[in-house]
Amino acid sequence: MVEMPTIIIEGPSISVEKKRELVKRFTEVASEVYGIEHITVLIKENPPENVGINGELLLDRKRKQ
Amino acid sequence: MVEMPTIIIEGPSISVEKKRELVKRFTEVASEVYGIEHITVLIKENPPENVGINGELLLDRKRKQ
Amino acid sequence: MVEMPTIIIEGPSISVEKKRELVKRFTEVASEVYGIEHITVLIKENPPENVGINGELLLDRKRKQ
Amino acid sequence: MVEMPTIIIEGPSISVEKKRELVKRFTEVASEVYGIEHITVLIKENPPENVGINGELLLDRKRKQ
Amino acid sequence: MVEMPTIIIEGPSISVEKKRELVKRFTEVASEVYGIEHITVLIKENPPENVGINGELLLDRKRKQ
Amino acid sequence: MVEMPTIIIEGPSISVEKKRELVKRFTEVASEVYGIEHITVLIKENPPENVGINGELLLDRKRKQ
Repeated sequence: MVEMPTIIIEGPSISVEKKRELVKRFTEVASEVYGIEHITVLIKENPPENVGINGELLLDRKRKQ
Repeated sequence: MVEMPTIIIEGPSISVEKKRELVKRFTEVASEVYGIEHITVLIKENPPENVGINGELLLDRKRKQ
Repeated sequence: MVEMPTIIIEGPSISVEKKRELVKRFTEVASEVYGIEHITVLIKENPPENVGINGELLLDRKRKQ
Repeated sequence: MVEMPTIIIEGPSISVEKKRELVKRFTEVASEVYGIEHITVLIKENPPENVGINGELLLDRKRKQ
Repeated sequence: MVEMPTIIIEGPSISVEKKRELVKRFTEVASEVYGIEHITVLIKENPPENVGINGELLLDRKRKQ
Repeated sequence: MVEMPTIIIEGPSISVEKKRELVKRFTEVASEVYGIEHITVLIKENPPENVGINGELLLDRKRKQ
Protein backbone atom coordinates (compact mmCIF):
# COMPACT_ATOMS: atom_id res chain seq x y z
CA MET A 1 0.00 0.00 0.00
CA VAL A 2 1.29 3.45 -0.88
CA GLU A 3 -0.85 5.70 1.32
CA MET A 4 0.78 7.42 4.29
CA PRO A 5 -1.67 8.85 6.81
CA THR A 6 -0.40 11.76 8.88
CA ILE A 7 -1.55 12.36 12.45
CA ILE A 8 -1.11 15.84 13.94
CA ILE A 9 -1.61 16.32 17.69
CA GLU A 10 -2.07 19.83 19.07
CA GLY A 11 -1.53 19.69 22.84
CA PRO A 12 0.53 21.01 25.76
CA SER A 13 4.25 20.30 26.26
CA ILE A 14 5.07 16.73 27.29
CA SER A 15 8.23 14.71 28.10
CA VAL A 16 10.17 12.77 25.48
CA GLU A 17 9.04 9.55 27.17
CA LYS A 18 5.38 10.50 26.68
CA LYS A 19 6.07 11.50 23.04
CA ARG A 20 7.61 8.07 22.49
CA GLU A 21 4.50 6.41 23.92
CA LEU A 22 2.09 8.62 21.93
CA VAL A 23 3.85 7.84 18.65
CA LYS A 24 4.07 4.11 19.33
CA ARG A 25 0.44 3.70 20.35
CA PHE A 26 -1.11 6.10 17.80
CA THR A 27 0.76 4.29 15.05
CA GLU A 28 -0.48 0.89 16.27
CA VAL A 29 -4.08 2.13 16.24
CA ALA A 30 -3.81 3.83 12.85
CA SER A 31 -2.02 0.85 11.25
CA GLU A 32 -4.77 -1.51 12.37
CA VAL A 33 -7.71 0.70 11.44
CA TYR A 34 -6.35 1.88 8.07
CA GLY A 35 -4.48 -1.32 7.24
CA ILE A 36 -1.44 0.83 6.38
CA GLU A 37 2.02 0.57 7.94
CA HIS A 38 3.52 3.89 6.98
CA ILE A 39 2.25 6.46 9.48
CA THR A 40 3.73 9.87 10.26
CA VAL A 41 2.94 11.53 13.61
CA LEU A 42 3.64 15.23 14.29
CA ILE A 43 3.43 16.34 17.93
CA LYS A 44 2.79 20.06 18.31
CA GLU A 45 3.45 21.60 21.73
CA ASN A 46 1.54 24.80 22.47
CA PRO A 47 2.63 27.08 25.35
CA PRO A 48 -0.21 28.06 27.76
CA GLU A 49 -0.10 31.67 26.57
CA ASN A 50 -0.93 30.55 23.01
CA VAL A 51 -4.04 28.48 23.81
CA GLY A 52 -7.50 29.85 24.52
CA ILE A 53 -10.27 27.80 26.09
CA ASN A 54 -13.76 29.30 26.15
CA GLY A 55 -12.40 32.83 25.72
CA GLU A 56 -9.59 32.74 28.25
CA LEU A 57 -5.86 32.06 27.84
CA LEU A 58 -4.80 28.75 29.39
CA LEU A 59 -2.06 30.82 31.09
CA ASP A 60 -4.70 32.82 32.97
CA ARG A 61 -6.85 29.79 33.83
CA LYS A 62 -3.84 28.03 35.32
CA ARG A 63 -2.96 31.04 37.50
CA LYS A 64 -6.44 30.96 39.03
CA GLN A 65 -6.25 27.31 39.99
CA MET B 1 -7.86 20.07 33.81
CA VAL B 2 -8.86 22.67 31.27
CA GLU B 3 -6.66 21.73 28.31
CA MET B 4 -8.27 20.10 25.29
CA PRO B 5 -5.84 18.41 22.89
CA THR B 6 -6.98 18.16 19.30
CA ILE B 7 -5.94 15.26 17.05
CA ILE B 8 -6.18 15.73 13.28
CA ILE B 9 -5.82 12.67 11.03
CA GLU B 10 -5.13 13.15 7.33
CA GLY B 11 -5.88 9.85 5.57
CA PRO B 12 -7.95 8.13 2.89
CA SER B 13 -11.76 7.62 3.07
CA ILE B 14 -12.88 5.04 5.62
CA SER B 15 -16.20 3.58 6.83
CA VAL B 16 -18.18 5.03 9.74
CA GLU B 17 -17.36 1.91 11.76
CA LYS B 18 -13.64 2.52 11.31
CA LYS B 19 -14.06 6.21 12.22
CA ARG B 20 -15.83 5.13 15.42
CA GLU B 21 -12.94 2.83 16.27
CA LEU B 22 -10.27 5.45 15.45
CA VAL B 23 -11.93 8.05 17.65
CA LYS B 24 -12.47 5.65 20.56
CA ARG B 25 -8.93 4.29 20.55
CA PHE B 26 -7.08 7.55 19.81
CA THR B 27 -8.97 9.20 22.67
CA GLU B 28 -8.05 6.39 25.06
CA VAL B 29 -4.36 6.75 24.17
CA ALA B 30 -4.36 10.55 24.36
CA SER B 31 -6.30 10.59 27.66
CA GLU B 32 -3.80 8.24 29.26
CA VAL B 33 -0.66 9.94 27.93
CA TYR B 34 -1.77 13.55 28.54
CA GLY B 35 -3.86 12.82 31.65
CA ILE B 36 -6.66 14.86 30.06
CA GLU B 37 -10.19 13.64 29.38
CA HIS B 38 -11.39 16.22 26.89
CA ILE B 39 -10.03 15.23 23.48
CA THR B 40 -11.29 16.34 20.09
CA VAL B 41 -10.54 14.19 17.01
CA LEU B 42 -10.97 15.48 13.43
CA ILE B 43 -10.85 12.85 10.67
CA LYS B 44 -9.94 14.30 7.27
CA GLU B 45 -10.65 12.15 4.22
CA ASN B 46 -8.52 12.93 1.17
CA PRO B 47 -9.56 11.63 -2.28
CA PRO B 48 -6.76 9.80 -4.20
CA GLU B 49 -6.55 12.61 -6.74
CA ASN B 50 -5.65 15.11 -3.97
CA VAL B 51 -2.75 13.14 -2.44
CA GLY B 52 0.77 12.96 -3.82
CA ILE B 53 3.32 10.37 -2.69
CA ASN B 54 6.91 10.81 -3.85
CA GLY B 55 5.87 12.98 -6.78
CA GLU B 56 2.92 10.98 -8.08
CA LEU B 57 -0.83 11.28 -7.45
CA LEU B 58 -2.21 8.40 -5.39
CA LEU B 59 -4.83 8.14 -8.15
CA ASP B 60 -2.15 7.29 -10.69
CA ARG B 61 -0.27 4.91 -8.39
CA LYS B 62 -3.46 2.96 -7.74
CA ARG B 63 -4.19 2.63 -11.45
CA LYS B 64 -0.81 1.00 -11.98
CA GLN B 65 -1.30 -1.62 -9.31
CA MET C 1 2.79 45.81 6.16
CA VAL C 2 3.44 42.66 4.19
CA GLU C 3 2.36 39.96 6.64
CA MET C 4 -0.84 38.07 5.95
CA PRO C 5 -2.23 36.12 8.93
CA THR C 6 -4.36 33.10 8.06
CA ILE C 7 -7.24 31.97 10.28
CA ILE C 8 -8.47 28.38 9.95
CA ILE C 9 -11.76 27.43 11.62
CA GLU C 10 -12.57 23.75 12.12
CA GLY C 11 -16.30 23.49 12.91
CA PRO C 12 -19.64 22.01 11.84
CA SER C 13 -21.47 22.97 8.62
CA ILE C 14 -23.02 26.44 8.64
CA SER C 15 -25.05 28.60 6.23
CA VAL C 16 -23.47 31.01 3.75
CA GLU C 17 -24.89 33.89 5.77
CA LYS C 18 -23.09 32.70 8.90
CA LYS C 19 -19.87 32.21 6.90
CA ARG C 20 -20.16 35.80 5.68
CA GLU C 21 -20.56 37.01 9.28
CA LEU C 22 -17.65 34.86 10.58
CA VAL C 23 -15.29 36.16 7.91
CA LYS C 24 -16.32 39.79 8.39
CA ARG C 25 -16.03 39.76 12.18
CA PHE C 26 -12.89 37.57 12.46
CA THR C 27 -11.14 39.86 10.00
CA GLU C 28 -12.13 42.96 11.99
CA VAL C 29 -10.72 41.43 15.19
CA ALA C 30 -7.52 40.17 13.57
CA SER C 31 -6.92 43.47 11.72
CA GLU C 32 -7.20 45.44 14.94
CA VAL C 33 -5.09 43.10 17.09
CA TYR C 34 -2.31 42.48 14.54
CA GLY C 35 -2.49 45.91 12.90
CA ILE C 36 -2.58 44.14 9.53
CA GLU C 37 -5.25 44.51 6.85
CA HIS C 38 -4.62 41.44 4.73
CA ILE C 39 -6.29 38.51 6.46
CA THR C 40 -7.25 35.15 4.92
CA VAL C 41 -9.96 33.04 6.59
CA LEU C 42 -10.53 29.36 5.72
CA ILE C 43 -13.75 27.81 7.03
CA LYS C 44 -13.57 24.02 7.31
CA GLU C 45 -16.88 22.14 7.65
CA ASN C 46 -16.61 18.73 9.32
CA PRO C 47 -19.50 16.21 9.00
CA PRO C 48 -20.66 14.72 12.38
CA GLU C 49 -19.28 11.31 11.42
CA ASN C 50 -15.75 12.78 11.11
CA VAL C 51 -15.60 14.47 14.52
CA GLY C 52 -14.91 12.72 17.82
CA ILE C 53 -15.56 14.33 21.20
CA ASN C 54 -14.24 12.55 24.29
CA GLY C 55 -14.05 9.22 22.46
CA GLU C 56 -17.41 9.25 20.70
CA LEU C 57 -18.40 10.28 17.18
CA LEU C 58 -20.48 13.46 17.11
CA LEU C 59 -22.86 11.45 14.91
CA ASP C 60 -23.52 9.02 17.76
CA ARG C 61 -23.81 11.71 20.43
CA LYS C 62 -26.42 13.55 18.34
CA ARG C 63 -28.50 10.39 17.92
CA LYS C 64 -28.72 10.00 21.69
CA GLN C 65 -29.99 13.52 22.31
CA MET D 1 -24.27 21.23 22.60
CA VAL D 2 -21.32 18.90 22.27
CA GLU D 3 -19.43 20.39 19.34
CA MET D 4 -16.18 22.22 20.02
CA PRO D 5 -14.94 24.37 17.12
CA THR D 6 -11.21 24.97 16.98
CA ILE D 7 -9.73 28.19 15.59
CA ILE D 8 -6.09 28.17 14.47
CA ILE D 9 -4.38 31.50 13.74
CA GLU D 10 -1.12 31.53 11.79
CA GLY D 11 0.51 34.92 12.26
CA PRO D 12 3.60 36.79 13.50
CA SER D 13 4.71 36.95 17.16
CA ILE D 14 2.50 39.11 19.39
CA SER D 15 2.43 40.11 23.08
CA VAL D 16 0.53 38.16 25.74
CA GLU D 17 -1.88 41.08 26.04
CA LYS D 18 -2.73 40.83 22.34
CA LYS D 19 -3.13 37.04 22.63
CA ARG D 20 -5.57 37.58 25.49
CA GLU D 21 -7.58 39.99 23.36
CA LEU D 22 -7.53 37.72 20.27
CA VAL D 23 -8.79 34.73 22.25
CA LYS D 24 -11.50 36.71 24.04
CA ARG D 25 -12.87 38.37 20.89
CA PHE D 26 -12.55 35.37 18.52
CA THR D 27 -14.41 33.26 21.07
CA GLU D 28 -17.20 35.84 21.36
CA VAL D 29 -17.64 35.89 17.58
CA ALA D 30 -17.49 32.10 17.18
CA SER D 31 -19.88 31.50 20.10
CA GLU D 32 -22.45 33.85 18.60
CA VAL D 33 -22.19 32.58 15.02
CA TYR D 34 -22.05 28.84 15.83
CA GLY D 35 -24.29 29.03 18.92
CA ILE D 36 -21.64 26.97 20.74
CA GLU D 37 -19.86 27.97 23.96
CA HIS D 38 -16.90 25.61 23.91
CA ILE D 39 -14.28 27.12 21.61
CA THR D 40 -10.56 26.32 21.49
CA VAL D 41 -8.16 28.88 19.98
CA LEU D 42 -4.57 28.00 19.02
CA ILE D 43 -2.27 30.95 18.28
CA LYS D 44 0.71 30.00 16.09
CA GLU D 45 3.63 32.44 15.97
CA ASN D 46 5.79 32.22 12.86
CA PRO D 47 9.27 33.82 12.81
CA PRO D 48 9.89 36.09 9.76
CA GLU D 49 12.45 33.64 8.35
CA ASN D 50 9.74 30.92 8.16
CA VAL D 51 7.14 32.91 6.21
CA GLY D 52 7.16 33.56 2.49
CA ILE D 53 5.02 36.20 0.82
CA ASN D 54 4.87 36.23 -2.98
CA GLY D 55 8.14 34.31 -3.25
CA GLU D 56 10.22 36.21 -0.72
CA LEU D 57 10.99 35.53 2.95
CA LEU D 58 9.32 38.01 5.29
CA LEU D 59 12.77 38.39 6.84
CA ASP D 60 14.13 39.75 3.57
CA ARG D 61 11.14 41.99 2.88
CA LYS D 62 11.50 43.57 6.34
CA ARG D 63 15.19 44.29 5.77
CA LYS D 64 14.37 46.27 2.65
CA GLN D 65 11.85 48.53 4.34
CA MET E 1 16.93 9.14 5.37
CA VAL E 2 13.81 8.47 7.40
CA GLU E 3 12.20 11.91 7.49
CA MET E 4 9.07 12.48 5.44
CA PRO E 5 8.12 16.13 4.94
CA THR E 6 4.44 16.82 4.32
CA ILE E 7 3.27 19.71 2.15
CA ILE E 8 -0.31 20.95 2.56
CA ILE E 9 -1.73 23.35 -0.03
CA GLU E 10 -4.88 25.31 0.77
CA GLY E 11 -6.26 26.67 -2.50
CA PRO E 12 -9.24 26.77 -4.86
CA SER E 13 -10.50 23.76 -6.86
CA ILE E 14 -8.26 22.72 -9.73
CA SER E 15 -8.26 20.01 -12.44
CA VAL E 16 -6.64 16.59 -11.99
CA GLU E 17 -4.03 17.60 -14.55
CA LYS E 18 -3.02 20.61 -12.47
CA LYS E 19 -2.94 18.47 -9.30
CA ARG E 20 -0.59 16.06 -11.07
CA GLU E 21 1.69 18.95 -12.02
CA LEU E 22 1.62 20.51 -8.52
CA VAL E 23 2.54 17.21 -6.87
CA LYS E 24 5.31 16.45 -9.36
CA ARG E 25 6.94 19.87 -9.17
CA PHE E 26 6.49 20.47 -5.41
CA THR E 27 8.09 17.09 -4.73
CA GLU E 28 11.05 17.89 -6.99
CA VAL E 29 11.65 21.16 -5.15
CA ALA E 30 11.24 19.66 -1.67
CA SER E 31 13.45 16.66 -2.50
CA GLU E 32 16.24 18.91 -3.67
CA VAL E 33 16.04 21.41 -0.82
CA TYR E 34 15.58 18.89 2.02
CA GLY E 35 17.67 16.15 0.43
CA ILE E 36 14.81 13.74 1.20
CA GLU E 37 12.98 11.57 -1.32
CA HIS E 38 9.84 10.67 0.61
CA ILE E 39 7.47 13.61 0.31
CA THR E 40 3.71 13.61 0.89
CA VAL E 41 1.56 16.36 -0.68
CA LEU E 42 -2.04 17.04 0.40
CA ILE E 43 -4.07 19.30 -1.90
CA LYS E 44 -7.01 20.96 -0.12
CA GLU E 45 -9.73 22.47 -2.32
CA ASN E 46 -11.76 25.23 -0.66
CA PRO E 47 -15.09 26.34 -2.19
CA PRO E 48 -15.43 30.15 -2.69
CA GLU E 49 -18.07 30.35 0.02
CA ASN E 50 -15.59 28.98 2.60
CA VAL E 51 -12.75 31.44 1.96
CA GLY E 52 -12.57 35.01 3.23
CA ILE E 53 -10.15 37.59 1.87
CA ASN E 54 -9.83 40.88 3.76
CA GLY E 55 -13.24 40.43 5.41
CA GLU E 56 -15.26 39.33 2.40
CA LEU E 57 -16.23 35.86 1.13
CA LEU E 58 -14.48 34.93 -2.09
CA LEU E 59 -17.98 34.04 -3.34
CA ASP E 60 -19.08 37.66 -2.98
CA ARG E 61 -15.88 39.12 -4.43
CA LYS E 62 -16.27 36.95 -7.52
CA ARG E 63 -19.87 38.06 -8.03
CA LYS E 64 -18.76 41.69 -8.15
CA GLN E 65 -16.14 41.12 -10.82
CA MET F 1 -7.42 37.60 -8.97
CA VAL F 2 -8.24 37.76 -5.28
CA GLU F 3 -7.47 34.23 -4.15
CA MET F 4 -4.39 33.61 -2.01
CA PRO F 5 -3.30 29.98 -1.76
CA THR F 6 -1.37 29.07 1.39
CA ILE F 7 1.30 26.37 1.38
CA ILE F 8 2.28 24.80 4.72
CA ILE F 9 5.41 22.61 4.85
CA GLU F 10 5.93 20.32 7.84
CA GLY F 11 9.58 19.22 7.85
CA PRO F 12 12.84 19.19 9.81
CA SER F 13 14.88 22.31 10.66
CA ILE F 14 16.68 23.88 7.72
CA SER F 15 18.98 26.87 7.12
CA VAL F 16 17.71 30.32 6.18
CA GLU F 17 19.26 29.88 2.75
CA LYS F 18 17.20 26.73 2.16
CA LYS F 19 14.05 28.45 3.42
CA ARG F 20 14.68 31.25 0.93
CA GLU F 21 15.01 28.71 -1.88
CA LEU F 22 11.90 26.72 -0.80
CA VAL F 23 9.75 29.86 -0.70
CA LYS F 24 11.03 31.16 -4.03
CA ARG F 25 10.56 27.88 -5.91
CA PHE F 26 7.27 26.79 -4.29
CA THR F 27 5.82 30.18 -5.12
CA GLU F 28 6.94 29.93 -8.76
CA VAL F 29 5.29 26.51 -9.08
CA ALA F 30 2.07 27.54 -7.33
CA SER F 31 1.80 30.80 -9.29
CA GLU F 32 2.11 28.97 -12.59
CA VAL F 33 -0.28 26.11 -11.73
CA TYR F 34 -2.97 28.22 -10.03
CA GLY F 35 -2.45 31.32 -12.20
CA ILE F 36 -2.36 33.37 -8.97
CA GLU F 37 0.47 35.65 -7.87
CA HIS F 38 -0.32 36.04 -4.19
CA ILE F 39 1.03 32.96 -2.41
CA THR F 40 1.81 32.59 1.28
CA VAL F 41 4.26 29.89 2.41
CA LEU F 42 4.59 28.78 6.05
CA ILE F 43 7.63 26.65 6.89
CA LYS F 44 7.15 24.56 10.05
CA GLU F 45 10.27 23.09 11.63
CA ASN F 46 9.67 19.98 13.76
CA PRO F 47 12.37 18.80 16.23
CA PRO F 48 13.27 15.07 15.90
CA GLU F 49 11.67 14.31 19.27
CA ASN F 50 8.30 15.57 18.00
CA VAL F 51 8.11 13.46 14.83
CA GLY F 52 7.16 9.79 14.67
CA ILE F 53 7.79 7.59 11.64
CA ASN F 54 6.23 4.13 11.59
CA GLY F 55 5.84 4.08 15.37
CA GLU F 56 9.24 5.38 16.38
CA LEU F 57 10.47 8.88 17.27
CA LEU F 58 12.79 10.36 14.65
CA LEU F 59 15.10 11.11 17.59
CA ASP F 60 15.45 7.39 18.32
CA ARG F 61 15.84 6.39 14.68
CA LYS F 62 18.66 8.90 14.23
CA ARG F 63 20.50 7.57 17.28
CA LYS F 64 20.53 4.10 15.76
CA GLN F 65 22.04 5.21 12.49
